[in-house]
Amino acid sequence: MLRHDPDPQADPSTLVYAFGGAEPVLQLRPGDVVGTWTRDCFAGRVGSTADLVSEVCDPRYLNPQTGPFFVEGAEPGDTLAVHFLSIEPREARGFSSTVPFFGALTATPGTAMLHPALPERTWVYELDRVERLVRYAALDSAFTVDLPLDPMHGTVGVAPPLGEVRSSLTPGSWGGNMDTPEMRAGATCYLGVNVPGALLSLGDGHARQGEGETCGVAVECAMDTVFTVELVKGSPTPWPRLEDDTYLMTTGSARPLEDAFRIAHTELVRWTAELLDLSELDAYQLVSQAALTPVANVVDTNYTVVAKLPKYLLGSAVAMGGVHGRLRQAR
Amino acid sequence: MLRHDPDPQADPSTLVYAFGGAEPVLQLRPGDVVGTWTRDCFAGRVGSTADLVSEVCDPRYLNPQTGPFFVEGAEPGDTLAVHFLSIEPREARGFSSTVPFFGALTATPGTAMLHPALPERTWVYELDRVERLVRYAALDSAFTVDLPLDPMHGTVGVAPPLGEVRSSLTPGSWGGNMDTPEMRAGATCYLGVNVPGALLSLGDGHARQGEGETCGVAVECAMDTVFTVELVKGSPTPWPRLEDDTYLMTTGSARPLEDAFRIAHTELVRWTAELLDLSELDAYQLVSQAALTPVANVVDTNYTVVAKLPKYLLGSAVAMGGVHGRLRQAR
Amino acid sequence: MLRHDPDPQADPSTLVYAFGGAEPVLQLRPGDVVGTWTRDCFAGRVGSTADLVSEVCDPRYLNPQTGPFFVEGAEPGDTLAVHFLSIEPREARGFSSTVPFFGALTATPGTAMLHPALPERTWVYELDRVERLVRYAALDSAFTVDLPLDPMHGTVGVAPPLGEVRSSLTPGSWGGNMDTPEMRAGATCYLGVNVPGALLSLGDGHARQGEGETCGVAVECAMDTVFTVELVKGSPTPWPRLEDDTYLMTTGSARPLEDAFRIAHTELVRWTAELLDLSELDAYQLVSQAALTPVANVVDTNYTVVAKLPKYLLGSAVAMGGVHGRLRQAR
Amino acid sequence: MLRHDPDPQADPSTLVYAFGGAEPVLQLRPGDVVGTWTRDCFAGRVGSTADLVSEVCDPRYLNPQTGPFFVEGAEPGDTLAVHFLSIEPREARGFSSTVPFFGALTATPGTAMLHPALPERTWVYELDRVERLVRYAALDSAFTVDLPLDPMHGTVGVAPPLGEVRSSLTPGSWGGNMDTPEMRAGATCYLGVNVPGALLSLGDGHARQGEGETCGVAVECAMDTVFTVELVKGSPTPWPRLEDDTYLMTTGSARPLEDAFRIAHTELVRWTAELLDLSELDAYQLVSQAALTPVANVVDTNYTVVAKLPKYLLGSAVAMGGVHGRLRQAR
Repeated sequence: MLRHDPDPQADPSTLVYAFGGAEPVLQLRPGDVVGTWTRDCFAGRVGSTADLVSEVCDPRYLNPQTGPFFVEGAEPGDTLAVHFLSIEPREARGFSSTVPFFGALTATPGTAMLHPALPERTWVYELDRVERLVRYAALDSAFTVDLPLDPMHGTVGVAPPLGEVRSSLTPGSWGGNMDTPEMRAGATCYLGVNVPGALLSLGDGHARQGEGETCGVAVECAMDTVFTVELVKGSPTPWPRLEDDTYLMTTGSARPLEDAFRIAHTELVRWTAELLDLSELDAYQLVSQAALTPVANVVDTNYTVVAKLPKYLLGSAVAMGGVHGRLRQAR
Repeated sequence: MLRHDPDPQADPSTLVYAFGGAEPVLQLRPGDVVGTWTRDCFAGRVGSTADLVSEVCDPRYLNPQTGPFFVEGAEPGDTLAVHFLSIEPREARGFSSTVPFFGALTATPGTAMLHPALPERTWVYELDRVERLVRYAALDSAFTVDLPLDPMHGTVGVAPPLGEVRSSLTPGSWGGNMDTPEMRAGATCYLGVNVPGALLSLGDGHARQGEGETCGVAVECAMDTVFTVELVKGSPTPWPRLEDDTYLMTTGSARPLEDAFRIAHTELVRWTAELLDLSELDAYQLVSQAALTPVANVVDTNYTVVAKLPKYLLGSAVAMGGVHGRLRQAR
Repeated sequence: MLRHDPDPQADPSTLVYAFGGAEPVLQLRPGDVVGTWTRDCFAGRVGSTADLVSEVCDPRYLNPQTGPFFVEGAEPGDTLAVHFLSIEPREARGFSSTVPFFGALTATPGTAMLHPALPERTWVYELDRVERLVRYAALDSAFTVDLPLDPMHGTVGVAPPLGEVRSSLTPGSWGGNMDTPEMRAGATCYLGVNVPGALLSLGDGHARQGEGETCGVAVECAMDTVFTVELVKGSPTPWPRLEDDTYLMTTGSARPLEDAFRIAHTELVRWTAELLDLSELDAYQLVSQAALTPVANVVDTNYTVVAKLPKYLLGSAVAMGGVHGRLRQAR
Repeated sequence: MLRHDPDPQADPSTLVYAFGGAEPVLQLRPGDVVGTWTRDCFAGRVGSTADLVSEVCDPRYLNPQTGPFFVEGAEPGDTLAVHFLSIEPREARGFSSTVPFFGALTATPGTAMLHPALPERTWVYELDRVERLVRYAALDSAFTVDLPLDPMHGTVGVAPPLGEVRSSLTPGSWGGNMDTPEMRAGATCYLGVNVPGALLSLGDGHARQGEGETCGVAVECAMDTVFTVELVKGSPTPWPRLEDDTYLMTTGSARPLEDAFRIAHTELVRWTAELLDLSELDAYQLVSQAALTPVANVVDTNYTVVAKLPKYLLGSAVAMGGVHGRLRQAR
């Protein structure tokens, strides 16, 4: 296993906050297993309920990414497969917050209104990594409750096309800040390669999140992560896809939210048609009766929807040349 | 058990295609158990792959409803609880189709474009009501696959406010064509009462559907349905809610889809705050980490999102005075 | 000229607040000229800066309409042409306001958020009907300024299709609360007929409004209005259109706002193709270079966009059989 | 006057297709007058009706920009004022086209659907620069008509914040591909500065366009342009603004289109409040009655709305320290 250990003392201004435009930190070969860690989305600046994001964080330095990793042999037109072997919180605590003019149930810079901001607050979650629990504690009353620990990365992506450099706060066709809880250990993420080496980065660990990430902030924490990569040569992937042992998944990230749905479902229709050798209309019909469609986020600069097809429908058909099954064996 | 049996020979022009504006067919008392049946959304006009909707159906006579039922004692400001004891396909076949300019992945009268319509097709599904399976069969190849039978009503609602009469093709605050698979046997639907007697109607049975109902048409079939009603007096419900043994659920129906999300999640935040005696911000935080958010439909004249809170979070708190638990015992 | 004079003393509960579902107040023949008047959207309840809408108005009794008028010979599939000869404020004052959770720059029941409502205020405008001016006076400072008087009806429509009854707060394919300043004297509005007699109603007079009606309330006033009607037999109009001496105009009312744009522009492309005997693609190209596209409202339960084609492009082609030119001569 | 003359023979791969990320081509001082020229959006590859965009253009090399220009003294937090003295077509012909899956009335990669693309066509416009006319000629019939010549730049912008590099196909807070016909000679564009030197670029000349740029392509042509720049130090501008002799204008670029409207109108409310020393609510009210709101584009990767306030309302108040009036005198 290769190790890449970001310097925990690094100055925030030296970290990477975008997809595209940064120099690679490590060169990987397909099949390599990499152990690394990612900072939380606050770059570690939030440590108690007294730390308000607008006071302790610099808005230029939110959501730092680990990477980019240069994958040898990756060329535009290929697909990069990233399989997560392990995603584990580094500390026994996570943090969430409200942030002024950020979230699904508040005016934002995009959905601009004349309201003053909602109150800003910070919540601290105790993480029990043995019992696999996340403890919610109310601020304004004594209520507490345990939720299942379900660690994941909010942000996984590659360099975008057209030479763009995109903030790590934004999801799109290159991946990025999709904020779907499906990005957990055991899942393989497929990303279309836009530049030589792909330039994979990841970050924004969540001990767990609800579907939609409604207030805009999950249970944020630094993560210890082990992943491996493969290439599907000569096979482009227009929008990020996921596979786990049970589902094939497509994503769409756009506004309005129905456009995110449309992207995810056209992608799922086409993938289904290809895998089952169905006509496009037959696949449209099958997806219409069989798909699950959880919302991922309605808070980032694009919104994300996931469409899921149960793999039992596939019979002997295997996606992406069976790469998920092979990576599942990595260690 | 009361029976209400619509006349299977009734002329389509005499059926009810709206919420509001129709005379009640039966008067119910809270606690009554009602056995009835509903026509499929095609009013029975589609019976084979040769039957195309635009040829065999009259556009004025789509999605007929059974009802309305007048509930004694229901007054504006109350909530009507409708619990489904049983929802079973009447026949061993269901039908789906594409319909010109209808569906999530086509231009529509609302999302108007210059494209010609996608091809119109009809699919026939064999329903195995013993093994609880729905058999998909492709039209353009020999592929078939079995999906789980999961019967539900796409349309459940009451008379709207402001004296409006709304087509049964539309979902809104009165319920209507929400097209969520959560409306299955074992679930209780809560609807705010807008007019004396509430005027409950239901229809649009689906042997199953995917989340989003992507092509606009589920596995449509006539249904035998047994339900019971209760009233939560003096407690208004702004948007339809659902409860089953595992989840509390809110719905929002609007365009764009993020507005449906916002409605469902503000409702869930407020319901959670009320039930757990949390501040609104504490409830916003808890919902952000705990909610599930499946898309229901992105095809009707409003789109529908469901937000779900696991009931294990509630401790001893009970929603709507415990009406779901009581109706669960009905027979 | 026929007169229809609503009773100024009528109880608000007896007025008409919807399109569809009401008995006609008068029977018209094509060519008839009708003098009538309309209440303001507050039903006259706002009379000073001390009158706040949420305190003085009943939410069930907003935006009363004058009508409906039954037009002899109007049948589904026809187009009703309504030409406005005169629209004049009845009083020398108009009123505007903010209304809790209503407007483009606030959370609303549809765009639901956790913000408290913006402050509620009422503004009084002096109308100088000789100098044709509307005097804005700030509430929180001494600033005043005169704007041009430009009287119009926010609401003009007919009974909707599918037996629906729709609140007068909503615009749609039947017309209704489109809130476009183009609905002024000298303009002809074309409405598709959905029921025998068409059932034309109008109301919601504005001494003037900005494009978008941003806060949700224009300079509201009762209006004295003279109009005349004609029928274009056997020629359906899917969405309301307007014509004045300079422009042909189409409207779309939908959410999101781009869908309102798409409706208005597909309609304009098709109308242009028909009038100039162009292919649809040639008309698409011409409209792309020649159309004006003002926003009408972003505040009602649907949003409205207007697309305008300068009539100089038409050469000798004449829309709707020249009905606008003929009605222009009416008196 | 400074001259900057891009090399007409330059290889397309060496041109600039983004805002941010490119080296400046020239250093300007505030007050400098610059004469330059811009390529058309096709980089000159379309020259007849036989040239289809998907065949003659490389998708990586669309919408090349002239610049960036480094403005001495420009710092983050300042506003750059760009005044257009002259914008004139370089040739006597312009070109428009349909492009597969691009435009307001077609499925697109964002509004993804299952339709095949609309037919691809190219139109040639003769430009009469003396009579100031643009001649439309139909492809499928003999129809021609003259429209007013109204030259403008579709794309004007600076380097974005957060280190992003954004495609010149996208509009946003940094300007970019706003596609508003208000960007004509005589207008001053105000852009917030995000990086030292601002890095101003411009391109995408249109001999004219309709509001909305419905098919996605205006009457595209290379432009000879003369502009001058000034700085408003210490005064940030969140979203691009425009001023001409008659109007103050704000812009918003977002999806859905109502969010573009909301941005433009909150900006206009705040600007009006500041200039007239009004409370925010009083300004909200005034803008609601006085603003014009033309749609700019509904085709780019964000949509753009313009909100306009007539300057006669301002009395003696002057925006941006009177910079428009001063630049108006430049030559």
